[in-house]
Amino acid sequence: MKIEKLPSTLVYPSPVVLVTVIDSRGKANIITLTWVANLCHEPPTVGIGVGSKSYSRILIEETKEFVINIASTKILKETEFCGKTSGKDVDKFAMTKLTPVPSIKVKPPAIKECSINIECKVLQKIKMGSHDLFIGEIIAVQVDEDILDEKGEIDFHKAMPIVYIGGYDLGEYWNLGERMGKYEMYTRS
Amino acid sequence: MKIEKLPSTLVYPSPVVLVTVIDSRGKANIITLTWVANLCHEPPTVGIGVGSKSYSRILIEETKEFVINIASTKILKETEFCGKTSGKDVDKFAMTKLTPVPSIKVKPPAIKECSINIECKVLQKIKMGSHDLFIGEIIAVQVDEDILDEKGEIDFHKAMPIVYIGGYDLGEYWNLGERMGKYEMYTRS
Repeated sequence: MKIEKLPSTLVYPSPVVLVTVIDSRGKANIITLTWVANLCHEPPTVGIGVGSKSYSRILIEETKEFVINIASTKILKETEFCGKTSGKDVDKFAMTKLTPVPSIKVKPPAIKECSINIECKVLQKIKMGSHDLFIGEIIAVQVDEDILDEKGEIDFHKAMPIVYIGGYDLGEYWNLGERMGKYEMYTRS
Repeated sequence: MKIEKLPSTLVYPSPVVLVTVIDSRGKANIITLTWVANLCHEPPTVGIGVGSKSYSRILIEETKEFVINIASTKILKETEFCGKTSGKDVDKFAMTKLTPVPSIKVKPPAIKECSINIECKVLQKIKMGSHDLFIGEIIAVQVDEDILDEKGEIDFHKAMPIVYIGGYDLGEYWNLGERMGKYEMYTRS
């Protein structure tokens, strides 16, 4: 039987990413997000929902660049830490010992421990309420060589991504289970 | 070693949802999407990226309502079918035998076989290129009683959600593996 629940954000499972940003003096910060999605194929575009009162929201607005680093189960503790602290108070790279490495086209660094690094330039900010939506164009991508398959294609599974599931005030980190099928066409209907 | 790849939408793992819409005569259609995310906590808001040339894009624009039904591994075949066909050509409810049930506040039906049904009203459309972004406010939610835990909270895991991972032209459906940790606070930093 279906029962009614209060309106709430229940679009899960969702990705877990570490978004890197810099302040106007070049100091980097890390923010853990799960409200993030690919939105458009051409040009390649993503959207991220960022707390409107957060420190990182101010930085993204100032510098208009960010890098989406796909989090992995190997750095779950660091990922949690970056989601529970503010860059206003702590140096998250120093505290987590995650390693900043240069990006190709933007100023915020990529995170070495994340196998996929997606560099974005802000196209637009949309005010929504508790969160602001930043729409970003993907302008460069770096990946670790060791997540490529024999054809040189990304095997996302090798990046050991974290999967987030939620529901009202609860959230859980999971890993991938088994492959159930393959999809090779991007048709939308 | 990190190597450069072409800019591409690589924000995964992502959810797999069946979005229901209706046409002006009340006929329902189903579209499979994976480019969808929670975006804002208050008001509860989601975003979906929909192919700008797709039939469903026209319907959402006309009726300004949609329901996000979380797909499950139990209906993987039906989910794939709805992603590979157009509602212009086929009646997807008839072809898949998925069951439309009434929504609480919007006209498009919920899908009975999906344990979580999220009713949305379009707030805004953003043109991006190959895809349009619809930002929707969640105005009602229905869930199956049997995915609730003993406290009456949603146990998302019981909905048997599908997890999508991709990379350039490839995409794969996975299920959830093991729970790695818990997160009980929505602080963003």
